Amino acid sequence: MRKRVRAFAPATVANVSCGFDIFGFAMEYPGDEVKLTLTNTPGIEIRRIIGDNGRLPLEADKNTAGVAARLFLEKMNLHKETGVSIELIKNLPLGSGMGSSAASAVAVLYGLNHLFQSPLQRTELLPFAMETERTACGSAHADNAAPALFGGFVLIRSYFPPDIISLPVPDDLYCCLIHPDIEVNTGSARKILSPQIKLTDAVTQMGNVAGFVAALCKSDYDLLSRSMEDVLIEPVRSRLIPHYFELKEEALKAGALGCNIAGSGPSVFALCRSEPIAYQVSEAMKDLYDKINLKSEIYISKINQQGPKILED
Amino acid sequence: MRKRVRAFAPATVANVSCGFDIFGFAMEYPGDEVKLTLTNTPGIEIRRIIGDNGRLPLEADKNTAGVAARLFLEKMNLHKETGVSIELIKNLPLGSGMGSSAASAVAVLYGLNHLFQSPLQRTELLPFAMETERTACGSAHADNAAPALFGGFVLIRSYFPPDIISLPVPDDLYCCLIHPDIEVNTGSARKILSPQIKLTDAVTQMGNVAGFVAALCKSDYDLLSRSMEDVLIEPVRSRLIPHYFELKEEALKAGALGCNIAGSGPSVFALCRSEPIAYQVSEAMKDLYDKINLKSEIYISKINQQGPKILED
Repeated sequence: MRKRVRAFAPATVANVSCGFDIFGFAMEYPGDEVKLTLTNTPGIEIRRIIGDNGRLPLEADKNTAGVAARLFLEKMNLHKETGVSIELIKNLPLGSGMGSSAASAVAVLYGLNHLFQSPLQRTELLPFAMETERTACGSAHADNAAPALFGGFVLIRSYFPPDIISLPVPDDLYCCLIHPDIEVNTGSARKILSPQIKLTDAVTQMGNVAGFVAALCKSDYDLLSRSMEDVLIEPVRSRLIPHYFELKEEALKAGALGCNIAGSGPSVFALCRSEPIAYQVSEAMKDLYDKINLKSEIYISKINQQGPKILED
Repeated sequence: MRKRVRAFAPATVANVSCGFDIFGFAMEYPGDEVKLTLTNTPGIEIRRIIGDNGRLPLEADKNTAGVAARLFLEKMNLHKETGVSIELIKNLPLGSGMGSSAASAVAVLYGLNHLFQSPLQRTELLPFAMETERTACGSAHADNAAPALFGGFVLIRSYFPPDIISLPVPDDLYCCLIHPDIEVNTGSARKILSPQIKLTDAVTQMGNVAGFVAALCKSDYDLLSRSMEDVLIEPVRSRLIPHYFELKEEALKAGALGCNIAGSGPSVFALCRSEPIAYQVSEAMKDLYDKINLKSEIYISKINQQGPKILED
């Protein structure tokens, strides 16, 4: 049996536009890397974290990477004889809305599964990835974990039991994402949502959700653009993001199909119908944040159809 | 110019399962027929209604057929010189949840448009059909009017402005519908719905809506079946339908993909993956209502891709 592996899992955008808690997609980069080493000493050790500026806990049970490793070993009934030592290379900013916690957990799960000759299907790994999200933000949501694990654009049709549907993606669809240098805690971003909504708003949102799926299936960019409207979440969470509606307007003016909050923010993503448009849109967004002296980073990527990968074994 | 035409528009199922106010489809039969005669005397006359047992108003402004004719003539700016005499053959039961009011209105609109060499697109006729729904039930909903007018399975992505999307339908998909001999008023069925719902229920419903559309696009019957769940409306409106949950159980046991309330009831429809299964399911549903001595009628039909048609001109 192999003893070491280096694995990668990508950034993901959850809550895509109208699809609160049900839509998510994977980006090609950035992503988190893990170096995993199996040991004969039971227990999970996080021996090093690079790229978090010392902010993530090294205690395995408080870190999604550590929790993922423990859940995997327990599932395989190996936790009494085997341990894992983890080095975590965080390329994803924390609290950014880019699925940072899910990426670390999925990289560990995918890497460990590979070390044991892949006894578990991705579908079987998903509950562990979801469970680690509870460690990170108090809610076992799947809209980062599922696209990080399966790649592509996914629908979480149901949570109990999880029912993950891969949706087709038009070939030229690009995402550009801007990450302003502020942090939003996912748990807090969830608490500000009202637990009750209007039935009429739900109908509007359902129409857009249906339009969004039909647009992906038909490669209909105009319909996709019309469907990228969120009447439930954006009005509330946009308050946490500096100059959100101006940013959105700039993105749309520059040619984006639509522009919404990535996950629970503060990152903002736009979908675009070609790479050149994605560059234009990114520039427009970046310019706005530069103008107000808000430090930000830009990522441009196709939808990542592969999900996690093994970098070295 | 032609002076007379006989036109048909089909029964429709609205609020399809999870798709409250956004999904609707047309059946091949039954449907309403109209015989229209243009006259030189301004005004709309309903000269005869067959099949309603004298229950529909002959006053043109209180009848969806009459209102549709008036709106069409006004749009064409012909109302000051031209009149229409209407004979309405109601094959659809009233207050049945089968889109009776929309069928009459659409037959009139489609027939009149044909008489004038089709100056208006179906998209342009839709607002009139929706407006007639306001006459019938107080709400200008489109989920019967749109499928009656366009045929097929439609998504009403948005109401303001109306954005109607045709969804693909798998070849072998059959609908069976049972109409118990009781009546539900659409307006009242709308009033019993709570204007506020839980965000968590909306997420569940959105997941199913998305799953339903993906299933139609992929011809995935298993996914369609899993997505035919309605947590928003069925729990409330099922109270208006005798033995609803038993009926549903019988339909599912007999092989239906799913079974829900047609429109606002009291009709109940099931989707099935073949004609023989649709017959089995119909029998099971009919048996239950026979057992409790509730008179009922059964309709079995493919999805009607054509919509309205001219029967004679």
